[in-house]
Amino acid sequence: MTPDPNSDRRSERARRAILDAAFDLVSRKGFAKLTIEAIAAQAGVGKPTIYRWWRSKGAVVLEAMNEELGDDFAYPDTGDIAADLTTQITAVSRRLITGRMSEAFRGVLGEAQNDPELMKAFRRTILEPSIAQCRARLESAVAAGQLRSDLPTDVMVDLFYAPIHYRHFLGFGDDAVRGSADLVQDVLLGLRPRP
Amino acid sequence: MTPDPNSDRRSERARRAILDAAFDLVSRKGFAKLTIEAIAAQAGVGKPTIYRWWRSKGAVVLEAMNEELGDDFAYPDTGDIAADLTTQITAVSRRLITGRMSEAFRGVLGEAQNDPELMKAFRRTILEPSIAQCRARLESAVAAGQLRSDLPTDVMVDLFYAPIHYRHFLGFGDDAVRGSADLVQDVLLGLRPRP
Repeated sequence: MTPDPNSDRRSERARRAILDAAFDLVSRKGFAKLTIEAIAAQAGVGKPTIYRWWRSKGAVVLEAMNEELGDDFAYPDTGDIAADLTTQITAVSRRLITGRMSEAFRGVLGEAQNDPELMKAFRRTILEPSIAQCRARLESAVAAGQLRSDLPTDVMVDLFYAPIHYRHFLGFGDDAVRGSADLVQDVLLGLRPRP
Repeated sequence: MTPDPNSDRRSERARRAILDAAFDLVSRKGFAKLTIEAIAAQAGVGKPTIYRWWRSKGAVVLEAMNEELGDDFAYPDTGDIAADLTTQITAVSRRLITGRMSEAFRGVLGEAQNDPELMKAFRRTILEPSIAQCRARLESAVAAGQLRSDLPTDVMVDLFYAPIHYRHFLGFGDDAVRGSADLVQDVLLGLRPRP
């Protein structure tokens, strides 16, 4: 049996409508008040359609985040590691506190604290690809003699990115999250090659 | 009218029974499955008694955490700032990944992502007192010439404590959380007085 191309097109249209509705609702109402019912109503599909493709509202929102982010986690490489880290961490902080991504991120990660499968999906689709790109950039800085070679780059990633997520998740407020890029210089002081 | 001491004693007994039940249930079943009904049943009180004193299950669990932690956030002071930070961060990491505190912490902070009032209470009763004690210890290290004096101590607290919470909250796993104490030395390298 050959697949029916019209049915595929209809499915894709439903999928997009569901993701758009979820993303729109989460940013307007917040994750706590989001329901599968409301997503279905706004997308013009039945609840069973949503449950056929996703196991929870967290999974729907995570896929909507992934659509928005795309595949492009490439790290800037101007040759200046301090500048590139600052650029990228500034971009992440902006995403965490403004726009549609902000409520989605907070909601999905809050939910993932009690849902290991959602956490695994978040890490696989968003966190780990970003970390891999950051590590590649750090490796080239190590090779260029701009960073210590005696500390694994995955540890360096943690040192650079931890403050922004710590401040975001523990409720330090938007200004503190935005200010995380300023810490790059202080962390770097400990990561420069030893004389 | 003088207060009735028997009624006060009964109230205190009910309060303790509720907090014990909440803490026990959250560690055995996880925060997501915790309900006010189950707490009431195990504590031998009615649901209205719980709702008279707390606004949500998150608020009950937060108070149970506070009872367990007590008022003592004092920081060790052996004169060696690296050793003292390592001791304290090791203690925090143990608390985050083992015992009754672990599920409670993850549950309350997950919930607080969508409940600003709970976040405010968590910060006021747990986070801010710990930060104040850590800052006091860092100030004395600055005064002793062991740390830079040109960086505010609240920023230093973030640099030391961010990795442990980042690894915990973003699902890096227990070994990574436990290993956060090893980062103290690398962060310190950037915080020693400049020559």
